Amino acid sequence: MSDTVNRQVLLVEKPAGKLGPEHFKMAKATIPEPKDGEVLVRLRYISLDAANRAWMHGATYRAAVEANTVMAGGGIGEVVSSKAPGLAPGDIVFGDTGWQDYAAVPAKHLTKMPKVEPMTHLLSVYGIAGLTAYFGLLDIGKPKAGETVVVSAAAGSVGSIVGQIAKIKGCKVVGIAGGKDKCNWLTRELGFDAAVDYKDGAVFKALKAAAPNGIDVYFDNVGGDILEACLSQMNNRGRIACCGAISQYDGVPSAHGPRGVPGLIVVKRLIMQGFIVMDFMDQRDEALSDLQSWVASGKLKVQEDVINGLENTPKALIGLLAGENRGKRMVKV
Amino acid sequence: MSDTVNRQVLLVEKPAGKLGPEHFKMAKATIPEPKDGEVLVRLRYISLDAANRAWMHGATYRAAVEANTVMAGGGIGEVVSSKAPGLAPGDIVFGDTGWQDYAAVPAKHLTKMPKVEPMTHLLSVYGIAGLTAYFGLLDIGKPKAGETVVVSAAAGSVGSIVGQIAKIKGCKVVGIAGGKDKCNWLTRELGFDAAVDYKDGAVFKALKAAAPNGIDVYFDNVGGDILEACLSQMNNRGRIACCGAISQYDGVPSAHGPRGVPGLIVVKRLIMQGFIVMDFMDQRDEALSDLQSWVASGKLKVQEDVINGLENTPKALIGLLAGENRGKRMVKV
Repeated sequence: MSDTVNRQVLLVEKPAGKLGPEHFKMAKATIPEPKDGEVLVRLRYISLDAANRAWMHGATYRAAVEANTVMAGGGIGEVVSSKAPGLAPGDIVFGDTGWQDYAAVPAKHLTKMPKVEPMTHLLSVYGIAGLTAYFGLLDIGKPKAGETVVVSAAAGSVGSIVGQIAKIKGCKVVGIAGGKDKCNWLTRELGFDAAVDYKDGAVFKALKAAAPNGIDVYFDNVGGDILEACLSQMNNRGRIACCGAISQYDGVPSAHGPRGVPGLIVVKRLIMQGFIVMDFMDQRDEALSDLQSWVASGKLKVQEDVINGLENTPKALIGLLAGENRGKRMVKV
Repeated sequence: MSDTVNRQVLLVEKPAGKLGPEHFKMAKATIPEPKDGEVLVRLRYISLDAANRAWMHGATYRAAVEANTVMAGGGIGEVVSSKAPGLAPGDIVFGDTGWQDYAAVPAKHLTKMPKVEPMTHLLSVYGIAGLTAYFGLLDIGKPKAGETVVVSAAAGSVGSIVGQIAKIKGCKVVGIAGGKDKCNWLTRELGFDAAVDYKDGAVFKALKAAAPNGIDVYFDNVGGDILEACLSQMNNRGRIACCGAISQYDGVPSAHGPRGVPGLIVVKRLIMQGFIVMDFMDQRDEALSDLQSWVASGKLKVQEDVINGLENTPKALIGLLAGENRGKRMVKV
């Protein structure tokens, strides 16, 4: 990387169907000058998230990513120069920097991060993934010891932490993931009580065997047919934390919603609640303190999947949507 | 009605499709003798509810109604003789008595009711309908003054009360109902701010015009396409109180659920929550005291639709499912 060139990954066009490498291209720009109130950030790690794909559709909690602009995405970087009070060169920040070497970002859109070793933990367990798992499970799902918690995309960045926190809270935990290897990893390495491989036949039946007492809390990362299978096995007064709908992001969204809505919601007095981690930022310190103590004591294992090179970011996202990652996927710029 | 004969309406068979008169027949039995712990109730009014139809499917909060048994249903009656402490001849009780002149019912399954004039109010505003509206709107929907509340089946027993309570709480209220007459009644007589006739073209568009600031609370009595239309117009942090799914009860339930689940629930941080009025019975006195004072002050208008004759109960239910009633439908035995 030259010291004057800012490499960027552009979204060439919004994909109508499945996302592919043809939707991106590399470009070069000059390193921007921060304006008043902005800082220049040199990116270190870029976060890959299923939500990146949803942003291309628009109609999410943020503006749609437009064609022929730098692809949006969260990143961790170092402040190089600052025209904003409160941030100084050398500070580590997190924000929506986009996929590039350098970004000039208004300071108010950045979060100053503590210096943590390894720095990658700022994107996994101490980042959006860990906080999403923490607040979604504890504040929305409200699991009680002894209850059965089911989580989908269980081998992913959020799901793998959800399941481990549920174990810490004394729950019985079932993970739903794609493939035998991931399922074995969940039960053997992360302490899940059971895992259901959604690629291996009917989820409904396997779930029934794995959660014979029904489901009290379902942490939904995927939507679609797996949500439908879980809905039908919820216990009375069960809670569904709606975190994402990965199954609906890449390609053409399904033409209909899950059966059982609203019939089963009424009869079983269920709560389905959507949430966005940003809404919980006033409780961030408390969450981080819990997460840090669990990591320190070995109760919470952190799994990261680091890919090298900005130029590999498109491939990294495409692979994430296909479910090839285990734990938090990120790109080292 | 003879003094020794107990007329009964039996469910002949569980309807696979639309409910019709052929699914019922009249029968005669002898008046039962109450056993220990039971009382003999002479029915005065039988409540017609969309849920009656759902019970025929099974998979609700109560056991399915079996073929060739007395059709289940709530009723108000007078205790004729008692083998249970706490209930004496002359007491007015409510319970699941079934469609018949007399029922012997365990006292623990009955609720002793106050003597109210007219007695019919015990099935409408002071009965399940009024309490369902009260708790569903206030405890699940949690409307704040100035917010927009939308209710479906708005001219029905529950919906007409939901809308009026929402007005009392300072909300902007939109009712969804079938037909111009019902819609006019909602706005002219009950004080709704607007009404949408779902039989008159696209609900989505009409709703957008009636609720231009979006929907904060949706009280859902119907499910299906109307739920889907409301989901797409919910404001961030909106609440959907799932009370019933009338559109799904009669005939073959729809093959899929509403689009927007879970995508819109996540993005808009919605809460969808099912409830059953029985879960709130510990707060019943407080609710009744509010309802009574609103009725006394004229803020809450009570609409009842009383049909004469036990033999007309099947027709009354079939008509209710077709939406022909306004306010609380019941049969005078």
